[in-house]
Amino acid sequence: MKFADIAKRLETISAINITPFDLETKEINWERLEENVQFLLKHGVTSIVPCGNTGEFYSLSLEEAKEEIRRVVDVVAGRALVVAGIGYSLPIALELGEYAQQVGADAVMIHQPIHPYVTESGASSYFRKIIETLEIPSVIYYKDPYLSDNVLKELAPLDKLVAVKYAINDLPRFARTVRDIPKEHHITWVCGTAEKWAPFFYHAGAKGFTSGLVNVYPEKSFAMLEALQNGQEEQVWSIWEELEAFENLRAKYNNGNNVVVIKEAMAQLGMSAGMTREPVNPLNEQDSKEVQSILESWGLLKKPAVS
Amino acid sequence: MKFADIAKRLETISAINITPFDLETKEINWERLEENVQFLLKHGVTSIVPCGNTGEFYSLSLEEAKEEIRRVVDVVAGRALVVAGIGYSLPIALELGEYAQQVGADAVMIHQPIHPYVTESGASSYFRKIIETLEIPSVIYYKDPYLSDNVLKELAPLDKLVAVKYAINDLPRFARTVRDIPKEHHITWVCGTAEKWAPFFYHAGAKGFTSGLVNVYPEKSFAMLEALQNGQEEQVWSIWEELEAFENLRAKYNNGNNVVVIKEAMAQLGMSAGMTREPVNPLNEQDSKEVQSILESWGLLKKPAVS
Repeated sequence: MKFADIAKRLETISAINITPFDLETKEINWERLEENVQFLLKHGVTSIVPCGNTGEFYSLSLEEAKEEIRRVVDVVAGRALVVAGIGYSLPIALELGEYAQQVGADAVMIHQPIHPYVTESGASSYFRKIIETLEIPSVIYYKDPYLSDNVLKELAPLDKLVAVKYAINDLPRFARTVRDIPKEHHITWVCGTAEKWAPFFYHAGAKGFTSGLVNVYPEKSFAMLEALQNGQEEQVWSIWEELEAFENLRAKYNNGNNVVVIKEAMAQLGMSAGMTREPVNPLNEQDSKEVQSILESWGLLKKPAVS
Repeated sequence: MKFADIAKRLETISAINITPFDLETKEINWERLEENVQFLLKHGVTSIVPCGNTGEFYSLSLEEAKEEIRRVVDVVAGRALVVAGIGYSLPIALELGEYAQQVGADAVMIHQPIHPYVTESGASSYFRKIIETLEIPSVIYYKDPYLSDNVLKELAPLDKLVAVKYAINDLPRFARTVRDIPKEHHITWVCGTAEKWAPFFYHAGAKGFTSGLVNVYPEKSFAMLEALQNGQEEQVWSIWEELEAFENLRAKYNNGNNVVVIKEAMAQLGMSAGMTREPVNPLNEQDSKEVQSILESWGLLKKPAVS
């Protein structure tokens, strides 16, 4: 597959699969992980990102991260792109990336460096070394508002950089960067802040978006993508409004709720999502009830009969 | 050693040693690392933290982090406390912590969880599991302003929690927390934002501070500690003023300069500090010159003769 073809195929929903942890032991339940991936495939997902943030990448050991990538590639078996999340220090990112490549991932998504001290040229070197070392193409997850987009402009000419998952909600800045980078570099822009922000990013040039919601309500994520693609504005905003309370609940406690709301919703719908791992604990009762009422409002859960 | 004794011994400078990387290969130069530790010991340091942020913990592979801890313990050979930095996911933090314990570190410093989503109770569980699992005591590095200090209040009664390295520069918040936690818990408060903030934190209860400067100019760090301990206010502010430009230069580029300024200063003084690793690149020329002029103003470097 040519790099530009992979870039093109990323103009869709990037589904971030969850990592289900056992309720007691908090070990990964691999069977549930496979069910989750099958669910995504069944609902038409064509790009899956194991070891993303919704997959609690930062809660995994390196061995678990590798195993998750390997298993997702196996289950997907060519039916979708697999874009493996990799990160941490340069040696660790390369170790994970080389593993992903070896087991057949189609691309890697390079997480934002988690170092407390980052310089612009240093960040550029970090991404460049990974992109150049691996044979499979890379997606950059760009999240730190303090780093200028010069990093992206500098790296854009690299053939193996196929997409940027842009997660800084500064839309004029995003639009400027999209316009500054020549189309001939075939960079696919992906809104990294999901359905809540996708409509704004779409019109500025992000033809895809990432989604955690897709683990719960894939029909709605795809309805939004299609409405955006078909220019059905009224439909876009109606879906956006329907999802607003859910995405706001995920954003609660400085995004502390981000993953646990997804897992709670899946559990309420009878999908075994398991626990989150530390540093995220189960939802409090009030937030669980809000998940329930949202699922009821969506018609996914029946309201209990009044007795 | 009793836990309360270790707490008491942390009422000093926590020296964060650097990790020297080879200029060409960027591999760790272990000989230089040992020289750096010997330098610290020679200048009276009694607490050394391998794998801290000034040690570029997040740029190391896990094997390198372990090796650094082991070597620092060996070189120190009981002449100072060794407080090993550990972090990442819970399984990785435990792996590093158990290794540190096994090779003879006196305590661990638990880095702030780097997960993008953290809940208060989840953060508390994260720290608690590490503190309870290890036999050696723990220091919590507390850095995320979005997490409330209830986490610290909840964990303070644990015998094995001996200190908190507090790195949120909200002094009224810090003072409130210090006053809310009973003295009988023997928590040593350490200012986590070094000489620039130490005077403010000291009077609110932080009897120690962390230092990266100590790798360059330990006499000045100790002069500040002693002036604080002896209540010599004029002396404190005179030292504070002398260090201001250096610490401000480290804070440049959203702290991107933090470590590289230390390494550049060491290099200019003839100590082999080596390169920083990605995502931090060498200083630009202007900043290098500023390091030089600061070192000259301190009398550590002679001004070049005017020809």
